[in-house]
Amino acid sequence: MSETCVFCKIVEGKIPSTRVMETETVLAFMDIGPIVKGHVLVIPKSHVESLGELPEALLADVMLAVQQIARSQVAGLAADGVNIHQANGAAAGQVVPHLHFHVIPRFNTDGHRWNWKSQSYANASEAEALAARLRSV
Amino acid sequence: MSETCVFCKIVEGKIPSTRVMETETVLAFMDIGPIVKGHVLVIPKSHVESLGELPEALLADVMLAVQQIARSQVAGLAADGVNIHQANGAAAGQVVPHLHFHVIPRFNTDGHRWNWKSQSYANASEAEALAARLRSV
Repeated sequence: MSETCVFCKIVEGKIPSTRVMETETVLAFMDIGPIVKGHVLVIPKSHVESLGELPEALLADVMLAVQQIARSQVAGLAADGVNIHQANGAAAGQVVPHLHFHVIPRFNTDGHRWNWKSQSYANASEAEALAARLRSV
Repeated sequence: MSETCVFCKIVEGKIPSTRVMETETVLAFMDIGPIVKGHVLVIPKSHVESLGELPEALLADVMLAVQQIARSQVAGLAADGVNIHQANGAAAGQVVPHLHFHVIPRFNTDGHRWNWKSQSYANASEAEALAARLRSV
């Protein structure tokens, strides 16, 4: 636990939340600022900041909960689709530094559109050079 | 394999791609329309359309690859952060109906901002009513 972390306080019950599911290692609760109503956050109970630091067993636990919530949004809210979104680091838009997966129900009529501005590579070798750097580590 | 699926054709090598990593069950390759250059797609090799349908063992395989790519973007591309994004269904923005996780390197200077318009609930009971529907399935 981190003394200053809002999500640790939610796990401990020191800050109230609307809980959706809970296991020994994972908590899912309603996002109070939903992109679309029904938006859920799934977190490990232990304080882990980013995906890269998440131990393998806990990654599996978190993702099974994410999958279960996604299914529940389709079955229980009649969602037409579901988005999963996760941010690591302030540069990626992470605000609370305790790993969280957003599970967002989507409806054909919800009016939300992601800002999805695709770029393109100048040529195949530009992409290959980046891939080589990814493969090298 | 689906005869008409673009990502199945990439797995089979019938459509070229710039590969980043590959296991028996998972393939990671460069997105040709990156949000930020270095953007990678991680897919199961078998044709699964959405997260809800992904078998548990394959979910674990896919997420370990997602995690590995995220770490590689930080270590190999000096990314300041990483976003994970995944869409299920056309309502969520899914274009290719073969499950794929976007792993997007983020830089303080990349200029990308997600369209993140938070709503709010009228009161606690509105959120609780949705949570109850999620818990009931």
